[in-house]
Amino acid sequence: MAQRILVLNPNASLSCTAGIAAALAPLATPGGPRFDVVRLEQGPPAVATWRDWFQVAEPLCQLVEREAADAYVIACVSDPGLEAVRMATTRPVLGMLRCAVAAALTRAERFGIIGFMESSRPRQRRVLQAMGVEARLAAFEPLNLPMEVLTDPLAARARIEAAARHLAAQGAEAIILGCTGLAGHAAAAEAAAGVPVIEPCLAAGSMALLALRGEPVAAARTAA
Amino acid sequence: MAQRILVLNPNASLSCTAGIAAALAPLATPGGPRFDVVRLEQGPPAVATWRDWFQVAEPLCQLVEREAADAYVIACVSDPGLEAVRMATTRPVLGMLRCAVAAALTRAERFGIIGFMESSRPRQRRVLQAMGVEARLAAFEPLNLPMEVLTDPLAARARIEAAARHLAAQGAEAIILGCTGLAGHAAAAEAAAGVPVIEPCLAAGSMALLALRGEPVAAARTAA
Amino acid sequence: MAQRILVLNPNASLSCTAGIAAALAPLATPGGPRFDVVRLEQGPPAVATWRDWFQVAEPLCQLVEREAADAYVIACVSDPGLEAVRMATTRPVLGMLRCAVAAALTRAERFGIIGFMESSRPRQRRVLQAMGVEARLAAFEPLNLPMEVLTDPLAARARIEAAARHLAAQGAEAIILGCTGLAGHAAAAEAAAGVPVIEPCLAAGSMALLALRGEPVAAARTAA
Amino acid sequence: MAQRILVLNPNASLSCTAGIAAALAPLATPGGPRFDVVRLEQGPPAVATWRDWFQVAEPLCQLVEREAADAYVIACVSDPGLEAVRMATTRPVLGMLRCAVAAALTRAERFGIIGFMESSRPRQRRVLQAMGVEARLAAFEPLNLPMEVLTDPLAARARIEAAARHLAAQGAEAIILGCTGLAGHAAAAEAAAGVPVIEPCLAAGSMALLALRGEPVAAARTAA
Amino acid sequence: MAQRILVLNPNASLSCTAGIAAALAPLATPGGPRFDVVRLEQGPPAVATWRDWFQVAEPLCQLVEREAADAYVIACVSDPGLEAVRMATTRPVLGMLRCAVAAALTRAERFGIIGFMESSRPRQRRVLQAMGVEARLAAFEPLNLPMEVLTDPLAARARIEAAARHLAAQGAEAIILGCTGLAGHAAAAEAAAGVPVIEPCLAAGSMALLALRGEPVAAARTAA
Amino acid sequence: MAQRILVLNPNASLSCTAGIAAALAPLATPGGPRFDVVRLEQGPPAVATWRDWFQVAEPLCQLVEREAADAYVIACVSDPGLEAVRMATTRPVLGMLRCAVAAALTRAERFGIIGFMESSRPRQRRVLQAMGVEARLAAFEPLNLPMEVLTDPLAARARIEAAARHLAAQGAEAIILGCTGLAGHAAAAEAAAGVPVIEPCLAAGSMALLALRGEPVAAARTAA
Repeated sequence: MAQRILVLNPNASLSCTAGIAAALAPLATPGGPRFDVVRLEQGPPAVATWRDWFQVAEPLCQLVEREAADAYVIACVSDPGLEAVRMATTRPVLGMLRCAVAAALTRAERFGIIGFMESSRPRQRRVLQAMGVEARLAAFEPLNLPMEVLTDPLAARARIEAAARHLAAQGAEAIILGCTGLAGHAAAAEAAAGVPVIEPCLAAGSMALLALRGEPVAAARTAA
Repeated sequence: MAQRILVLNPNASLSCTAGIAAALAPLATPGGPRFDVVRLEQGPPAVATWRDWFQVAEPLCQLVEREAADAYVIACVSDPGLEAVRMATTRPVLGMLRCAVAAALTRAERFGIIGFMESSRPRQRRVLQAMGVEARLAAFEPLNLPMEVLTDPLAARARIEAAARHLAAQGAEAIILGCTGLAGHAAAAEAAAGVPVIEPCLAAGSMALLALRGEPVAAARTAA
Repeated sequence: MAQRILVLNPNASLSCTAGIAAALAPLATPGGPRFDVVRLEQGPPAVATWRDWFQVAEPLCQLVEREAADAYVIACVSDPGLEAVRMATTRPVLGMLRCAVAAALTRAERFGIIGFMESSRPRQRRVLQAMGVEARLAAFEPLNLPMEVLTDPLAARARIEAAARHLAAQGAEAIILGCTGLAGHAAAAEAAAGVPVIEPCLAAGSMALLALRGEPVAAARTAA
Repeated sequence: MAQRILVLNPNASLSCTAGIAAALAPLATPGGPRFDVVRLEQGPPAVATWRDWFQVAEPLCQLVEREAADAYVIACVSDPGLEAVRMATTRPVLGMLRCAVAAALTRAERFGIIGFMESSRPRQRRVLQAMGVEARLAAFEPLNLPMEVLTDPLAARARIEAAARHLAAQGAEAIILGCTGLAGHAAAAEAAAGVPVIEPCLAAGSMALLALRGEPVAAARTAA
Repeated sequence: MAQRILVLNPNASLSCTAGIAAALAPLATPGGPRFDVVRLEQGPPAVATWRDWFQVAEPLCQLVEREAADAYVIACVSDPGLEAVRMATTRPVLGMLRCAVAAALTRAERFGIIGFMESSRPRQRRVLQAMGVEARLAAFEPLNLPMEVLTDPLAARARIEAAARHLAAQGAEAIILGCTGLAGHAAAAEAAAGVPVIEPCLAAGSMALLALRGEPVAAARTAA
Repeated sequence: MAQRILVLNPNASLSCTAGIAAALAPLATPGGPRFDVVRLEQGPPAVATWRDWFQVAEPLCQLVEREAADAYVIACVSDPGLEAVRMATTRPVLGMLRCAVAAALTRAERFGIIGFMESSRPRQRRVLQAMGVEARLAAFEPLNLPMEVLTDPLAARARIEAAARHLAAQGAEAIILGCTGLAGHAAAAEAAAGVPVIEPCLAAGSMALLALRGEPVAAARTAA
């Protein structure tokens, strides 16, 4: 039976949950692990404040305890509750920002982040500190747009392209989309900036697949 | 037609090339990108010195210019020639150590490296410096064993398990196998150390898949 | 009317709350700010895990919204919920570990921490990262003793003195008591180690007084 | 009998000495430690150069040897002679810049400094290096105004407010007044910048009180 | 017989080789070590890309193996092949950028680099990372001029003076000429910027002399 | 007329002054700059404490004002008064520890220091902080021997060789002799450790020569 990767959207938004699922869809393969995206039904509309960030941790833990899976992904680009959820299961738990930063570091020495709101900055900074790479953030460029504008295929396009270009001009050699709602704009941002653009759903999904692939491969090689 | 990821083994060893191919095999999916592993026929038996490290760069560039692919992976855990190869193609180029370190940072704040030889240390340190995470290396534990002992399923097992345990005792919360020849020991090392073990072929292969997945996904979401 | 500093014990323990109040008692002055120590009645027995750490944040915010004060102190040496509580009030909010580290840095260039449990380490490390001084931690020495042993005037004394001496031997030029339950051992630890020992209740209380003193002083000088 | 904190103004200025005393006045409490502010009668008019900075160290040491006290504060925001004075007494010795930086770090992750003169910058930088937090200085904004303008309640007000606003705009989440002569402008600077402003006389006075409170408290708790 | 310092120009340019020899001429003393400057006859016209940077390493090693000397200097301000050449001889091997940065650090805490081309930046950054001083680079100012303009005594003068002034304005307290072709402009740049200017041929030549002086001096003192 | 480099021994010891002159002797060349070594007649027997370190600064400044020279070297491996002396002259001023560390960084990525006394450590640490390379100190090994033992050709030899070996075993790839009195042991230490040993008199003398060579060379090339 296929392995299951449970992707935990810490907010209650159905459209956001659907967007994450769409972003992850290309990672599905026949017989490969299945990505199930669930939301915190009692969660906030978005993880927009420190208070949201702390508050979703325990419900995420309880969700993980209720829902068996082979690996878990916290689907918010500020990795809320990551350390707590890791205590609630022995299985791998991944955070989207950590995975996006890691992916950026495989492509470049300096990266920029297109942020959802100015207020996202301190929570993302905390993740960079935990990874020890705060000095590698070339610049942070918040959009400060409503979520529905962000996820619209066209409405925010020019603003996002400008942000990507501005980050590249400030030395970013790779750019992280700092919100799951930006997934649809990855190709446009990359074309505008001329540097690799990292979409965090895909980054975290890839890392979850990697975490699961470890053992079987090792086994296969030993048997060979 | 399927995309192609060309995996460049900078040494001339056939058995090493076969081992890398075996390690990457689980990443193949129907219709997904194909991993082709090639070796530098005129390369050194192993990239064991700084001189080897510099010398393989130009042949790798020329190989990349001859062999079209959608992405490239340099299959040596000291990322030789990475910066040069990136100049030889507009496609993504990934280094195994950068990818392994990135993967480790998604799982832990401190990592250790099981090295092939003591002499590998300075080249691996240079990669950590380029990524800005030298301070996150908890410890380096060289095996100093001949390659044929390393790749034997059993001969080096106890030594590798001891190295893994020792790294964990020194604060490593994840462990990187610092040589492609260690791929067969990932599960054993993980069981011994009790912390995630990162196998660099899989780490780099996963990152190459991610690099290719960027655009189609974005396109799909826009169309949705 | 006197100003009020509300000290928020994020656990439910009555004895712990009383200990914090006793530790703060010397800071009371006639007409000066009053320290009121309250506990989270529904809180955990101790903030001993990441899950506790995240979970107490929202109740602390709600407590702050209910209870007016001129300044707030989070009375746990891992600063749980600090960023969230700062969003819940416009008044100064202080964390005990940040204050203790700050006090240590006024006395020394390297400090050590006597920890409650080994498991406290990663949460305290996160605070050091936020302050940018992780490299100044000379060593961490966990006691791994039950709380009732810790707070006993004599039972843990020899163990604490040994920990203090061990930290000094590893280069700590100041020592932080990493748990409010250790307050009664400050003098003994200082005598044993021969370097300044920082008691976090006093450190945070002093910083809260400082935060409140800012304006009147300025006013007084302007009037002078 | 009350404890005595001797505050050492390393310059010869009577008005500066009086200003420091006025800034510290609010820290006096009935029965609490007494702050005595003294000046170096043979000292320079101000510690304005590296030469001044070195030269005041030995007279400060001799003053400390002549004048018994329970704790000492060096009353200049570049901590001249601190390491030497610490050799001249077994009692706590505090520097105003170290204390102000420590206080800032309890309130914010990035701070700015309003400097007296551009030429103060390298001496203050040396203190940040000693504390390990040079990377946390968001910006330095020198006033380059004569001391008598600085200490005037009104003359420099607009310039100081502008400096505070400018620092906040550059990412300072707390602001340090980089000269004892600025004490009268703390409230105005805080109102202008909208972030906490740290006045170094008060910061160092508070830390001196904390240093003295250590032992009695511990004693009291043990006796309880 | 006099000692010999072999200076290895990794490019094939005769005029560049002559310029390096001219820059080193003042270091010659009667009976002192002799500087011989040689070029890689099959080398690139200039080390202008990463590919050049890797490719010259092996020919440099072979040159060193063929040509006995007491010390070696790699005469390119990005230190190509340094680690490899150090494996090819037991004698001291010095890189011009490392030596120039070292010299700058004896004169200042922050330095700037006048670069040949924008594309030189990442290779020079790698050297700063290896030395651990990347954070001390105040700014990098590329000239982006053809080499023949650069080495002309007058043509590039105004542009170089402007670059030097601009670096000083950005906080550089010393300036490194980031290309051997700039040696003739050291005095002009220093006059323009008002801070020490480091010429890398002289810096590396001086360090090579120092490396050779070690033993005789020690011997002399022991005999005394 | 020949240029003059004035070497300022901040202590009053005649034998120490003679030792420094002997160490510098090999740097003299016909027609080249002359090294004159002078001592502070009223200085301490050795710069052994922070108090000495501060106290010698002003006499050094006055000496520099009295004695014209083309460059100055402060001949103590803790760089006392460096910043002050730089204000007292427009000519280059070099510190022996900064120069020795710089020289070490041209040869290695990690260095160790053989210290005179344990108490020298904090002053040397301050210099490393000013240079931004504190993290590159592999280890510090104090001798804690009387000066007359240190400067004896044989008495301390075995102890010094053991210290050098111990530093190399802890990762030092170059070793700095942390006291001018150790100059006679450079060759023995290098033989024992198997890594380059940096003698600070020679390092600083070489850097002073470099500082003076800047302009004439530039002039010569322009004229060419």
